[in-house]
This record gives sequence, C-alpha cells and structure tokens, in this order.
Amino acid sequence: MAKEKKVEQITDMEVDFAQWYTDICRKAELVEYASVKGFTILRPYGYAIWENMQQIMDAAFKKTGHVNVAMPVLIPESLLKKEGELVSGFAPECAWVTMGGSEELEERLAFRPTSETMFCDHWSRVLHSYRELPMLYNQWCSVIRWEKTTRPFLRSREFWWQEGHTIHETAEEAMAETEQQLNCYADFYENVLAIPVVKGRKTEKEKFAGAEATYTVECMMKDHKTLQGATSHYFGDKFSRAYGVTFAGRDNTLQYPFQTSWGSTTRMIGAVIMAHGDNNGLVLPPKIAPIQVIVLPVAQHKPGVLEAAEGLRARLEKAGLRVRVDDSDNSMGWKCAQYEMKGVPLRVEIGPRDIEAGQCVLVRRNDGEKTVVRLEELESAAAEQLEKVQQGLYEKARINLEEHIFAAQSVEEAKALQAEHGGFIKTMWCGDQACELRMKEEAGMSSRCIPFEQERLSEVCACCGRPAKHMIYWGVAY
Amino acid sequence: MAKEKKVEQITDMEVDFAQWYTDICRKAELVEYASVKGFTILRPYGYAIWENMQQIMDAAFKKTGHVNVAMPVLIPESLLKKEGELVSGFAPECAWVTMGGSEELEERLAFRPTSETMFCDHWSRVLHSYRELPMLYNQWCSVIRWEKTTRPFLRSREFWWQEGHTIHETAEEAMAETEQQLNCYADFYENVLAIPVVKGRKTEKEKFAGAEATYTVECMMKDHKTLQGATSHYFGDKFSRAYGVTFAGRDNTLQYPFQTSWGSTTRMIGAVIMAHGDNNGLVLPPKIAPIQVIVLPVAQHKPGVLEAAEGLRARLEKAGLRVRVDDSDNSMGWKCAQYEMKGVPLRVEIGPRDIEAGQCVLVRRNDGEKTVVRLEELESAAAEQLEKVQQGLYEKARINLEEHIFAAQSVEEAKALQAEHGGFIKTMWCGDQACELRMKEEAGMSSRCIPFEQERLSEVCACCGRPAKHMIYWGVAY
Repeated sequence: MAKEKKVEQITDMEVDFAQWYTDICRKAELVEYASVKGFTILRPYGYAIWENMQQIMDAAFKKTGHVNVAMPVLIPESLLKKEGELVSGFAPECAWVTMGGSEELEERLAFRPTSETMFCDHWSRVLHSYRELPMLYNQWCSVIRWEKTTRPFLRSREFWWQEGHTIHETAEEAMAETEQQLNCYADFYENVLAIPVVKGRKTEKEKFAGAEATYTVECMMKDHKTLQGATSHYFGDKFSRAYGVTFAGRDNTLQYPFQTSWGSTTRMIGAVIMAHGDNNGLVLPPKIAPIQVIVLPVAQHKPGVLEAAEGLRARLEKAGLRVRVDDSDNSMGWKCAQYEMKGVPLRVEIGPRDIEAGQCVLVRRNDGEKTVVRLEELESAAAEQLEKVQQGLYEKARINLEEHIFAAQSVEEAKALQAEHGGFIKTMWCGDQACELRMKEEAGMSSRCIPFEQERLSEVCACCGRPAKHMIYWGVAY
Repeated sequence: MAKEKKVEQITDMEVDFAQWYTDICRKAELVEYASVKGFTILRPYGYAIWENMQQIMDAAFKKTGHVNVAMPVLIPESLLKKEGELVSGFAPECAWVTMGGSEELEERLAFRPTSETMFCDHWSRVLHSYRELPMLYNQWCSVIRWEKTTRPFLRSREFWWQEGHTIHETAEEAMAETEQQLNCYADFYENVLAIPVVKGRKTEKEKFAGAEATYTVECMMKDHKTLQGATSHYFGDKFSRAYGVTFAGRDNTLQYPFQTSWGSTTRMIGAVIMAHGDNNGLVLPPKIAPIQVIVLPVAQHKPGVLEAAEGLRARLEKAGLRVRVDDSDNSMGWKCAQYEMKGVPLRVEIGPRDIEAGQCVLVRRNDGEKTVVRLEELESAAAEQLEKVQQGLYEKARINLEEHIFAAQSVEEAKALQAEHGGFIKTMWCGDQACELRMKEEAGMSSRCIPFEQERLSEVCACCGRPAKHMIYWGVAY
C-alpha cells in the first residue's frame, strides 16, 4: 500500500496573489531565504531553470558575435564617481567593502551594482584602434543593490544576471546594437518564455542612470500588474569621455567610441511564475523546464509496469527531451500534485491496461488536456504536446495582455480603469515630467514605456491638456 | 603588399620564468590587471578557455548526480564564526562589507572566501529526512581572499571557481564522494588538460581549515616548481554539529550528516600555461582551446585561395571543431606568430599550389610537425593531428614529472636535490609537524602530499631519524 504523503497546498491567486507567488517560490523549491536579510538562495530546481535560460540566451548572444568576460566584483569609489549620473543613481544602494583582512582600506570599494565603470576603465587601457571595434562583451554574474523591501526573484539585494557591454566606432552602430539586443530579449520572452511583450522606450525619469536612452520589454502578469522584462541602453559617448576611452579613428584622429549596455536577470523566473502559474503551482514553458516530461507508472507493483515506464523514459531522452520517471512509493495523487506544483509541462502515465492496449496517456500541465497515444508514436506525440503547451501558454498570455490595455483621456479615467481592470493604461502625453509625476501621485501608476508602435489616441496630453508628443503606457509595476 | 605588424616578443622561459609567464598572460590576451589592486580581468580569450573547462567539468559533475545552486555571496560574521577552525583559517583574508547604502551594518558581512558555512546554514533549514540524502550541490562563482602578493590566475584577490558541497547519510558515503571527486579532478587534469598528477593526502598542516582530511592532485610545472591542482575535503560531521544540520535517520533518531567539499579554480589556466607553454607563447590542449584550428590562406590575393580556406573552415566546423580563418591583411609571418602566441593547437595552411595539388598542410603547435594532407581527408587528418597534440602534450608533461621526482634520505640531501633539479623530493616522514617545519625552514620546501602510491624508501624519517610513517612529497609550490 502506498504511503500517503500530504500534498502541500498553496494559497489561491484570487485570494492573495502575493502569497500565492511566495508559496510557489517556496513549495516548488525554487528559492529559499538566506540568513542574510534580503538575500536569497537559488535552490537546485530554481537554478536549473536559470541554467536553461542562460544556455539559450548565451547561444543567442554568441551568434551575434558577443564574447564573455569576467570583470572584478569590487569597484573603487573614485572610479564609480567618474560618471556623475551613474553614481548618483547607484551609490545610495551600494554595499561597501571597507576592510580587507584586518586592514581598513584607504578607499572603500563598491560591490558592483552594474559594471559600466569597470568595462570603461578596462577599455581605456586596452583599446587603441578602430580596427579593434566593436568590442562586444557580456558577463554572467551577481550584483548587489541594497533594496529596502525584497521579494524572491523580483527584488533582492543580490541577484543573478547577464550584463552586456559594447563599444562601437559610430553612434549608428551602437544604436543598432541597442536595438538588436532589445529584440533579442523580446524574442527570448516571446519564443522561449512564452510571454508576449510591449517594446518601447523609457521616459527620462525611468531610464537607466547615465544612459542617453533606455529601451525595454514590458510584460503583463496574471494579476494585471506589469513587469519590466529586460532593458537595453544607449550611452552615446558620455561614458567614453568620462573614462577616457579613446581610439585612433580611420582618419587617425583620436575618437571616443559609442557605448551600449543591456541586462536581464533572475527576475525572469518571477515573470514566468506570474505569467503562467495557476492555483496548482508553477507552469513552465517546455524550453526552460528542467524536467520536460515526467513519466508516472500506474499500479507500478504490477509486473512489467516499471520496465515499461523506464522504456518510455529512455526513448524520450534519446529523442532529446529532459525526462524523469518517478517510481517512488508515493501515491499517484501525490505525484501528480507534486509535478504540477513543479510546473512540469507534460506528464506521461502508463499502467497495465495501457501496456495491454499498446498505449500511454499524455497530460498537459497548462490545461490538463489528456491524449491517448499509441506507444510507437510516443516521441512525435510528446514533441507535439510540448509544442502545444508552449503555444497554449503564449496564447493565454497574449490574450491576458491584449485584454488589459485600456485607453484613457484623463488622469481620472486612467485611475478608474486601473482600479477596475489593472493592466496597461495608454494615454497621450506631452513629454513633461510634471505630468508623469502627477500620474504617479494621483493614479498610482508609473510610466512603463513609450511603445514603438504608436497610436494617436487624441491630440492632447491626458494629464495637462497641452499638445501631445507620444502615446505612453502606464501601469503598476513589479 | 601586406602591412607588416610587429610580432610581440616574450621573455624566454630560461631567462626569467616568472616574466615569461606574465608575458604570456598579457600577450595572449588572457588576463589584464584591474584598477583595483590585486584584482584581474578575465579577457575574452582567457574566459573562453575557462568556459570550455567549465562545460567539461560541469557535465562530469552532473553525470554523477550533482546539481548547481547559487548561495549568497555575503556571509554574516557570526555565521562564519560558528566553526572555529574555518574562521581562524579564512577570517584574516576576508573582505568585509560594513555598509549597505548609507547605513552602517549592525553586523559586518564577509565576501565569501568559501561557502561551507552558507551551505550548512541552508541545510540546517531544509534537511529533514534521510530520504533527502545525499544532497550533491555545486556552485560556480567568484570568491575573495585578501592576499598580499598576487599573480594572474595563480593568486589573486578575486578568483573564479567551482565549489562542490555535499552531505551524506554515512561517513562511508561521504568518504567515497571525497574520493570520487578527487578522481574526477585527476581525470580532468590528465585527460583534458594533458597534465599528469600525483594524488595524495595533505598533511595536518596543509589541509583545508576545518576539514578532517584534504586530498589533492599535485602537478609539475616546466620550471620544476609544483602546483596544487585541485582539492577534495572530508569534514566528517564536524560542520553539521557546529551548524545544527540534522535529519531523521532510518531508525527515526536525529542524526548529523557527513559532509564533503571540493574545489577547482581559474588557477588551472595558470597550470596549463606553465605545464605546456614555450618560448613562442601559450600551448593549449585541444579540448579546452577556444580555437582548435586556425586556417591561414597563403597568398590570399590569388584567385580561389580565400574561398578554399573558407571551404576548409566550413568542413572542419561541420566536423564539430572550433575553427577560424584569418583572412586579415597581416603578413603570414605575423599570423603564424600570433596564433602560436595564442596556443592554437593546429594550423592549416592552404595556398594556390596546395589547391592545384589537392592538398593542404597541417602544422601542430606543440612540436611544429608538418603533415601534408589530401583535401578529401581533411576532417579525419585534423582530428588525428589534434589527438596527437593532446597526446604529445601529455607525454612531454609526463616525462617532465617523472624525471623530476627524487628520493632523499636527509634534509640536507633533499635541499641539495631541490637546488639542483627542482621537482618533487620524496622522503620518509615520521608524521611530526616539527619535521615538516624544519624542511620548510632549512630546505625551503613545503609538504605537497602523502601520495596514495606509497614506497618504502627507508625505515626512518629523513628529518629526525625516528621511525617513519609515510613517504611524503616535498616541493616548492606556486
């Protein structure tokens, strides 16, 4: 008789979305709190998701000529201070190393909050000629930002990310890089994470400290709050000038290169949870799932069942899938609940009657759809069902996004729409920061982006009535 | 006319080995100094070597059931202090964070010098039952140790590594893990890095702070100094007890798990440089070379040459090799010197006469051996030559090791042998630390390890004449 383990319950998202989120983080064993306040531990299952994300993104970066490097984690305060805007943006949330061994340091060192300064400092010493450009660098590492309030994946004092840093001969090339990398993120969100995005530019207020322009992919969560997915920045030659990065140009004059940076973080795991999860737990897009298929033997004590389950596993693995069999003595009910909690996209069930009938049952995680499959068609059927999970997730997320974009003509209307539906509220905007601040104060929304796909909702700013410059998206953001 | 660039010269290793080493680090563009004292930057080519090492090791770790995680980088001082030996070993070289943003922290936080304490703290909260054991964790990250004197790869304040941490139900299982991982390192050194190793146990004096036993793979450099390649530690249940890590055992009593840790670092790149490099630069074992084959078109302005070179590249890439063509306008001499400096294992030359004759020329980096190859046999010939490079490197390193192990019967003889030949000096040893200290003081050698393969050189300790317990290896180490 199978020993009955308690199936862990999570809070329903309709009851308390924040608690539902935290429950999934903990009960799917993605993350655990550390004994250092505001710091988290990425547990094996959470880290395996991150590794899958890394592998796919890293390959995409390399395909377009980027190479990885490792810069020092500590930045001297004087170096950080060379670019005024960056330091004023980041210094308030730096962690500072003031002692090395038993010595007090002469100059305190910041744990990197971001590494533009280190890259510029390095380039100022190694760059000589236009022939060496572009330099297309990336690094995978962790950074620290000393946040007051923290939540797993979304905001923690240490987080894991990639930061791309590039320099180019011309402004046009750097702009093209900024755009290429934004598109790379958009592709990753849409085709890998199955999360549709809105691409656009950040306002002056919301852009990265020190950047000339920041571009973003913004996405919609199931509670109709929004999440900044990843950002790509264009710096012009501002940092090059501040850090003395120069090269001999084609005409043999000394020139300053044009710079970009772009980053994406472990908060993408948070985005996946809140874009696809349900009241049974995590739902993972197949492309990043550590286990894509779980094979569960039914009545596994019966002769031949375990062998059959193992046979299916071996075949699916050979077909290139990440597969496991669970032949533990836990009950079938517990196992199903457990792998639903962990978001495994596809479950394969096989029992004595299936074996007799030459079939098995495939169950999709996202919609519970069952398909009975002839054993000889297992590989193609599993691939097809995984593709359907991927598409199903995207389609549902797309509808959630499209049904939660509302046009407003005034701050009051924007506020009312947000209160009723959440989502993105789109309005016309004059471009003035005073109006942006007013929307924040009166309607509780920050500007999310000025979408690349512009519409002309009216001729005037929804806040002040003066002539409008852009259509802008507002939202309550994670 | 090809523009003639200056070929960078490096110091001969016979003239100044230390300078030769540094020259390679810089001129092969592996590493660059950072503006923070004692910190280095892994440049793209150096990092690409590290990535290849990581990929191979990570796959080996996963094959034996290990999973990756990410632990916080900062460790509260009180947590670090729970295990007395560890903290006394590492605290003097910790970097301390004392400020977060603008606040003074109540408790200072150490940048991890190693993460046993964090893993134990985590396990103390998540481990419940023997059913969850073993937990086989690893993480790839950087650590800081505030060293006084630093050298690229060999000793720097920040370095990149993997640290494996595991807990087990029984002491036997933990010991088996310690041994398995030591063998994993030995295999990696011998079969991937082409560096033979001596496996053995560290003395009490040289073992890891807090470990019950430390095992090591030791290797021989070209200057006949020795280098500790990687280490694997057995902790017993000492840390479990100090950190309150417990589980309900099979008999339902509360038990302490047995623990291991094992680590290898970017210093392996230093080992590769010093084990295989020559006066023309770096020599890379093919398995970790970022570029395994460089294709150089001869007389590339002649019709058909560039296309032929590109064709060879495409074929070799399709055969699974990492290949580049250099069709820059640098001279052939400069190109050859450049790829020799970078240690590319195999060079393929193709020119008009080769094309006419249906052949190309393969040149091995390690011994300069040229082979003329029929074009249709390119793939198999390149694979064969790369295998010969790998074997040739190993064979030369094996001879260098074997010819530099000398037996001594006294401290004086040991000192004289070291002065004349360098290498490992093997003697019998009573096991007393006083004799170990005397060998250090009088002969300038530290104990490297008590090799697993023991010999009986005499009945008495070479230092004090009392009955011997072990044969031990001494050396001057990096």
